[in-house]
Amino acid sequence: MAVSREQCLELDQRDPLAPRRREFALPAGVIYLDGNSLGPLPVSTSTRVREVIDSEWGRGLIGSWNSAGWIDLSRRVGAGIAKLIGAQDDEVICADSTSINLYKALGTALRMQHARPRVGFDHRRVVLTERGNFPADLYVAQSITETFAGDYQLAAVAAEEIEYHIDESTSVLLLTHVNYRTGRMHDLANLTRRAQFAGALTVWDLAHSAGAVPVDLNAAGADFAVGCGYKYLNGGPGAPAFIYVAQRHLRAIAGDRFAQPLAGWFGHRAPFEFLADYRPAQSIDRFAVGTPSIIALAALECGVETVLAAGIGPLRAKSERQTQLFIDLVEAHCDGLGLQLASPRETAQRGSQVSFAHADAWPIMQALIARSVIGDYRNSSNNEPGLLRFGFAPLYVRFVDVWDAVQALRKVLVTRAWDQAQFHQLKAVT
Amino acid sequence: MAVSREQCLELDQRDPLAPRRREFALPAGVIYLDGNSLGPLPVSTSTRVREVIDSEWGRGLIGSWNSAGWIDLSRRVGAGIAKLIGAQDDEVICADSTSINLYKALGTALRMQHARPRVGFDHRRVVLTERGNFPADLYVAQSITETFAGDYQLAAVAAEEIEYHIDESTSVLLLTHVNYRTGRMHDLANLTRRAQFAGALTVWDLAHSAGAVPVDLNAAGADFAVGCGYKYLNGGPGAPAFIYVAQRHLRAIAGDRFAQPLAGWFGHRAPFEFLADYRPAQSIDRFAVGTPSIIALAALECGVETVLAAGIGPLRAKSERQTQLFIDLVEAHCDGLGLQLASPRETAQRGSQVSFAHADAWPIMQALIARSVIGDYRNSSNNEPGLLRFGFAPLYVRFVDVWDAVQALRKVLVTRAWDQAQFHQLKAVT
Repeated sequence: MAVSREQCLELDQRDPLAPRRREFALPAGVIYLDGNSLGPLPVSTSTRVREVIDSEWGRGLIGSWNSAGWIDLSRRVGAGIAKLIGAQDDEVICADSTSINLYKALGTALRMQHARPRVGFDHRRVVLTERGNFPADLYVAQSITETFAGDYQLAAVAAEEIEYHIDESTSVLLLTHVNYRTGRMHDLANLTRRAQFAGALTVWDLAHSAGAVPVDLNAAGADFAVGCGYKYLNGGPGAPAFIYVAQRHLRAIAGDRFAQPLAGWFGHRAPFEFLADYRPAQSIDRFAVGTPSIIALAALECGVETVLAAGIGPLRAKSERQTQLFIDLVEAHCDGLGLQLASPRETAQRGSQVSFAHADAWPIMQALIARSVIGDYRNSSNNEPGLLRFGFAPLYVRFVDVWDAVQALRKVLVTRAWDQAQFHQLKAVT
Repeated sequence: MAVSREQCLELDQRDPLAPRRREFALPAGVIYLDGNSLGPLPVSTSTRVREVIDSEWGRGLIGSWNSAGWIDLSRRVGAGIAKLIGAQDDEVICADSTSINLYKALGTALRMQHARPRVGFDHRRVVLTERGNFPADLYVAQSITETFAGDYQLAAVAAEEIEYHIDESTSVLLLTHVNYRTGRMHDLANLTRRAQFAGALTVWDLAHSAGAVPVDLNAAGADFAVGCGYKYLNGGPGAPAFIYVAQRHLRAIAGDRFAQPLAGWFGHRAPFEFLADYRPAQSIDRFAVGTPSIIALAALECGVETVLAAGIGPLRAKSERQTQLFIDLVEAHCDGLGLQLASPRETAQRGSQVSFAHADAWPIMQALIARSVIGDYRNSSNNEPGLLRFGFAPLYVRFVDVWDAVQALRKVLVTRAWDQAQFHQLKAVT
């Protein structure tokens, strides 16, 4: 553990990723520990978006669908993300939002299961998930299980009990790899293997994984995955999401034209022939639906490039050191001030964030933000204390930021700065 | 009819909308008659998007969801579009693509019909549409009718026969107001009335209407509508789409949590409380799903403002004159050169485009584009000749452009310029 600010500055000087920070337009004086909610602006994005708008759209007009390669952009950005999650280029496409991609993935998986020959067993009825999964994922699963034909049920169990609930009634295992509140990371390979052994399919949400931790979907033999473009991929507010489908499944559903329930012209095998009948593309393209926002995709491409250039291995190595340093420093400097670690102590079980519970988590976070240390607050189910959530994105977070953030936190706690009324005002935040 | 170029120039001089052209960054020398496929770049968009990226995202970071009003942007842009289509501010929201919004609208309408009490009649099974409807709309309808519970069928009939097929078996009438190929415009009020008289619900696709022709959804008592942001609304390539739901239906579905099948956190009544159960917003917000692209919405807002500033009345008046002038000039100057009008001759039945059929429509259009007259090509079903399609967006199209486009067309036809091999190369175009 670094025991002084000077040692943190030394760590930064020796850090091979340190120069990457200059690739981001971070405001001076801000310690940004919320890149797991909204990644900051890459310097390249402003220039690139201006080019797309002024040159490709403004001067190229409709012709830019071909001449500027807009028509392939969803696939191109998808291929970039594929490299970060252990997928083939032709297994990932960028389009729509994470929730909508989850609807496609879960819808497809259930339909595949429904079509499978069965011997002596009626029908796999259960979508199994984690009780503390990101709510939007639960909403999608609730909608699908309640409205799709086939009498499904959603079973949401505690994280540590998931593997014991996987059995021959499980149709799909639907999990978020890294939990949005605690940062707890599931063993993707192990759970995928267990699910498949029981005859289930897996749908992984990589919202807090892509660009943050190594993921190897192909090595794990994963079935479906989705993820978010605006967190660690730095794609901008509401950036398009992505979807991964294993090549073997793309082949398996080739003959079922509505295996993927959201049919649109960008998923058609020949969109510009304007055929009256839907014939899905025999590729990951069939998971596209309508016309994607080119401006949003171009911004996302710049964000993905920032991660690709650094490499996920070095990023993870630094992230592990930073989250560990943060835990160590908080426990050393804020001892007895009411914080309780809500993230796994085991590095291997932790994503790129650290959360601490505190009875006054909300106003404490507001007081921290007022001091330019930006993390965020997540409330808790079951009337437990809320969480102070801190994301560590090693592309631009310095070791000295970790130190300074802890000192700011300590000061807020010691001086009870959060008692001021201004910090108790509740507002919508993402 | 203007009988000379000079008369066209005079029409431009007297045109009150003429100064609006300066609000667009049109390349010099181009006659752009493809704003019905991709509207051109408003000058304001570059500046606005730069502000969103550099200031709101770059400096404001996560805080901009509140401080820059990102959280309300889908509703704010929706409220702008509402003024163009005769809807209340709280009946329209911008999100996702047209196809996905159609899935929401049709899914909701079918579920509402399914839940209705029935006397002496089993179940309304038919989604009625036009045979020549935009293919993506047919794809969505095919997917829903084939995969939703309830044994539905899609009936696609000729445009002029639609009203005779509306009966007590019709669950939903699904139509595009202005046909993408011919520009033929349905009588929205009359067909809505007839459908509702038979007990059906209506879903209107306004892709080629919003920003081009007057639409009054409230006066017609329309049920659902969707539309596109990147055509006459000038929102940029792949701009977010919009969805309209009548207030009475928002109230009617209040108790059915998955009436709208695509549940996501932006449709939740309290997204930032992160509740495990989906409780839909009791407003048009429930037709939102995931986090929308803020950059794409900001660009769309600039586009919508260009139309709002001009007013749909003056736009339609000029558009009617321009499409009529184009037809008159083509028939006078290109007589005997193989063109056949494929759009309605009656102004009132025509949207803001004119299409001509020709056996060599594809290479002719490529030859025109090479001369900087940009329209587009649409193929034809049933081996009929393809179409030369010309859109007239009176915000920036001048009367002299109409004249010059006809002269260019005449020259291409007379000289058989399209015989050159370069114009026969087929490429993807939107």
